[in-house]
Amino acid sequence: MERVDRLANGLKIIQSDDVFSFSVDAVLLANFAHLTKYSHVVDLCSGNGAVGLMVSHKTQGPIELVEIQSRLAEMAERSVRLNQLEDRVEVINADLKEALSYIKADSVDAVLCNPPYFAVHDHSRVNPNDYLALARHELTTNLDEVLAMTSRLLKTKGHLFMVHRPDRLLDIIRSMEKYQVTPKRMQLIYPKKHKEANILLIEGIKQGKAEGFKVLEPFVVHNEDGSYTDEMQVLFNV
Amino acid sequence: MERVDRLANGLKIIQSDDVFSFSVDAVLLANFAHLTKYSHVVDLCSGNGAVGLMVSHKTQGPIELVEIQSRLAEMAERSVRLNQLEDRVEVINADLKEALSYIKADSVDAVLCNPPYFAVHDHSRVNPNDYLALARHELTTNLDEVLAMTSRLLKTKGHLFMVHRPDRLLDIIRSMEKYQVTPKRMQLIYPKKHKEANILLIEGIKQGKAEGFKVLEPFVVHNEDGSYTDEMQVLFNV
Repeated sequence: MERVDRLANGLKIIQSDDVFSFSVDAVLLANFAHLTKYSHVVDLCSGNGAVGLMVSHKTQGPIELVEIQSRLAEMAERSVRLNQLEDRVEVINADLKEALSYIKADSVDAVLCNPPYFAVHDHSRVNPNDYLALARHELTTNLDEVLAMTSRLLKTKGHLFMVHRPDRLLDIIRSMEKYQVTPKRMQLIYPKKHKEANILLIEGIKQGKAEGFKVLEPFVVHNEDGSYTDEMQVLFNV
Repeated sequence: MERVDRLANGLKIIQSDDVFSFSVDAVLLANFAHLTKYSHVVDLCSGNGAVGLMVSHKTQGPIELVEIQSRLAEMAERSVRLNQLEDRVEVINADLKEALSYIKADSVDAVLCNPPYFAVHDHSRVNPNDYLALARHELTTNLDEVLAMTSRLLKTKGHLFMVHRPDRLLDIIRSMEKYQVTPKRMQLIYPKKHKEANILLIEGIKQGKAEGFKVLEPFVVHNEDGSYTDEMQVLFNV
């Protein structure tokens, strides 16, 4: 069952819990991404387009959303039209490995990515026809492929902004360094004040200098009573 | 000018601001280290012995402190006697590269380390006769040497507990992986709630499994008014 939800900044998005709905992770990623006035932006693994829509007020440049699942790409396409952003935001329904057929190499200022989080050690346990499974598990792509393509797409000194899980940090750093995307800023997201981090935001710069890695201030999502913290409320209402 | 300061658990320590005084970092490292009843513990870069003394109530096993600076090793030695711990705590005044002359390879359950934090790109800027400079800058040792020796000393599945700076995280992970000390747990320490992390605690296991990396709950040292937070107060008064 589809519905139209409100995003911050007066934007709307078409969603369906059966297929995919954006999460706190997408809101955090959109907030974490620094863009400039004319940034050329690509969102790899864009799902129903939430991140791309949420950053659309941060730049006047072109935004390209790459999504392998046609059902999600088609929903994103309709959300783009609903927000009258079709002159600047393009949805590309393709495997990210094919992105260079649509987007020029070394042309992108910022790659955004909210990739599948879970490494797949045993393919047989995941139903490959399940929309949610494809969005969550590394079935159609993985960290190494995401970083390989990010590195091809970005200009020298272009930025990657990615959201992922803290337990994959070692893999993330390994793949970033392998493809010369130098980790520069990281933020840990804690579900509550006294809980382990459950979300990781990381920024890398293509062929960036190795010095100056930073861990930003802690970000806590929920108060002890389960309500959203003030800092999280701000992101929902920007 | 020397003085005797109180540590938690009724311990005392000989200090001198001219030479070296232990810091919040040492208190955090001692708290972060999990030891078992008979752990054989080695503290590399032990300074005036603060970390070794602070963990002495956590185990009944032997604790060896390795410190290259004779002035600091001698102060540590006197602190050990002051606390009547000379039957279990030994101070070794040696370069950590020589540690295997004193401690058997593959015999240690836990290595603790509060190493010099700052990479040295230009030796001429640091006075090599300065006690504080030696403790702070990688003049006499560096991350790679610390990890190489840690890996030699630890039993298989033995633990490293290290305190360092977040801006060195990439180097730390690289050196740990190079010497097969798998990063397992990390905690970020934030000076205040809305500040970047300035201290990093990391635990690794020699030849540990790659899965299961965790980022522990955030730890904040100061309240907004500059006083210590309750969680920091607890560590001072254990």
